[in-house]
Amino acid sequence: MSTPTLVQTDLAEQLTAEVRTRFTERRDRAARYGPAFARLWDLAAAQAEGGKLVRPVLLVRTHSAMSAATGRSHVTHAELLQIASSLELLHFAFLLHDDVIDGDLYRRGRPNLVGTLLTERRAADDDAASSAAAGLHWGQTGAILAGNLVLSQVHQVFARAGVPDAVRERLLDLLDEAITETVAGEHADVALSDGVIEPDLDTILSTAARKTATYSFALPLRIAAVLADAPETWDAPLETIGRHLGLAFQLQDDYLSTFGSAALHGKDRWSDLREGKQTAIIAFARMTSRWPLVREKLGNRALTEEDAEHIVAELRACGADRFIEGLIADHLAAIAELLAADDDAAKLPAGVQHLLHELTAVLTGRRS
Amino acid sequence: MSTPTLVQTDLAEQLTAEVRTRFTERRDRAARYGPAFARLWDLAAAQAEGGKLVRPVLLVRTHSAMSAATGRSHVTHAELLQIASSLELLHFAFLLHDDVIDGDLYRRGRPNLVGTLLTERRAADDDAASSAAAGLHWGQTGAILAGNLVLSQVHQVFARAGVPDAVRERLLDLLDEAITETVAGEHADVALSDGVIEPDLDTILSTAARKTATYSFALPLRIAAVLADAPETWDAPLETIGRHLGLAFQLQDDYLSTFGSAALHGKDRWSDLREGKQTAIIAFARMTSRWPLVREKLGNRALTEEDAEHIVAELRACGADRFIEGLIADHLAAIAELLAADDDAAKLPAGVQHLLHELTAVLTGRRS
Repeated sequence: MSTPTLVQTDLAEQLTAEVRTRFTERRDRAARYGPAFARLWDLAAAQAEGGKLVRPVLLVRTHSAMSAATGRSHVTHAELLQIASSLELLHFAFLLHDDVIDGDLYRRGRPNLVGTLLTERRAADDDAASSAAAGLHWGQTGAILAGNLVLSQVHQVFARAGVPDAVRERLLDLLDEAITETVAGEHADVALSDGVIEPDLDTILSTAARKTATYSFALPLRIAAVLADAPETWDAPLETIGRHLGLAFQLQDDYLSTFGSAALHGKDRWSDLREGKQTAIIAFARMTSRWPLVREKLGNRALTEEDAEHIVAELRACGADRFIEGLIADHLAAIAELLAADDDAAKLPAGVQHLLHELTAVLTGRRS
Repeated sequence: MSTPTLVQTDLAEQLTAEVRTRFTERRDRAARYGPAFARLWDLAAAQAEGGKLVRPVLLVRTHSAMSAATGRSHVTHAELLQIASSLELLHFAFLLHDDVIDGDLYRRGRPNLVGTLLTERRAADDDAASSAAAGLHWGQTGAILAGNLVLSQVHQVFARAGVPDAVRERLLDLLDEAITETVAGEHADVALSDGVIEPDLDTILSTAARKTATYSFALPLRIAAVLADAPETWDAPLETIGRHLGLAFQLQDDYLSTFGSAALHGKDRWSDLREGKQTAIIAFARMTSRWPLVREKLGNRALTEEDAEHIVAELRACGADRFIEGLIADHLAAIAELLAADDDAAKLPAGVQHLLHELTAVLTGRRS
């Protein structure tokens, strides 16, 4: 059956409600294990809200265009929302563990799960001397364990999808591939930060593709096609488009973090520079004569506003901003080229092409 | 179809090979992401070997007795081994994350995954000053990420089981319940260590039941019954038996760690006392007049041999050893009583009863 076209606002509300449902359906079970565990689950549910819902929106909207084109769908709208919400859960599970690995206490401009649990624990602890380390341990334990539960829940949704066996196995294949690739990407990302592997531009881009593009962009597009019973020939171009879209999105993110307006972006403006994050911007700068002036201050946890402005000026001077703009444009051009390709076997229908153009513009044109 | 009865040695060999296969089938995919990720997967595979295989053996042997009784099985022997090996993987995924949470670097008398990665990283790092912290971060990151991959693999095996839909959904229910309960148990265990909840005897026992008994004992017994197409009435007694068996097993473990022979047990003899682990032994001692003498030295990381012997003497003097022996006997008696119950609806066939008696004796009678 086909799904109605939805305006974004309605869809975002539906998806927000659906994500909330994923947590609510397990609230009673969590409460059975006592107040500390119920509290962990409630905090996780609260943290899971407020995301941009990029992944589920991408799935629902492309599936809608695709099933309009094929005239078929393996799922009702309600079933589609359930699978879509599980992609938001997958994203959330990755964020929970990433924050533990990176030692982060904030996300989306507020304390993350680790930070919230840490603060609660410190407030409850009488022994002030030990409370900082104990609070961090309590917070990170909660985030590791909640991440495992949420990750398990994603698998449960996929494993129980009410679709023909062959379709479910295809969904499980896609999920499995995406998780493996994301974990490999996160591992490489840490290897880059920890200096285990060389931070050259190629490695940084392939790491970003694995860590972000696969599960955030290629996965929703490919699932949408499978659920719309689309021809198998769509799969390869969708995977490639997802990769380009994901890289453009990630590069845009890096660009905004360094060169964007703090007021619009809403993030801690200099966190990437303070952490010495290995981005494509830095990899480019490393190849230029300005590098010694950047390196000198990069990765200093106590970076001042002035130092940060200085690094940004150097990055602009060496042309890193224009380089990243060019890379983003390249990836968008590659998508346009793929969509325009005169290859009948891999040709996506006009409605799907139109939507992908629109989504590409929305996702990569953002200024915040 | 029924599965042949297996002598333990053959079965252990089959299961060891099967666990190895679970890792091998993903070796090539891991290698695609570069040498650091391939190394992580190889080390994880090596670490996964050498376990006692309690969970898969329990599943295979009880399933064999059960399907002999029902005359039916939903799986071939090869399919059964696959599901059984995934229970060992589930155990391993929990251990990987437990070791991160507990900050442990050793397991089974050798460096665990964190410890191995840490050592490799330190050896490769030129900057000796930063290498201890960097090595730990690298090791814990690897263990978190490998744990996620292994946990995902377990779900994949269950989700793809070639059994009727209703049976697969039942397997997924059991897996989901067991994971939730184990995570809740691990959370409570950390809450006990971190002093977030009171370490009374009831809490310690219910935590052990959740953290260990459910996935290690109740889960294999219940899966065996589902796969042997056993009547639903078997499920409740098997769950209860699993709980008693798991508690007896865990209490036996605590007992051997504190009162057992180091030579036989093979563990660091005083690790529980040195860590101040909240066991049933300690909860009992806390209620006696000897407690101040135990508390004085318990949880001292630099505990001497003499101090440890002193604590053990106090624990014996207050009757903690006899108390634990009594608790273990109680749980074993509860199993015997359940098996002998004159309740036709929940009556397990003679062959299954016989095997459960035998396994109970083996699992709880061990001296190492």
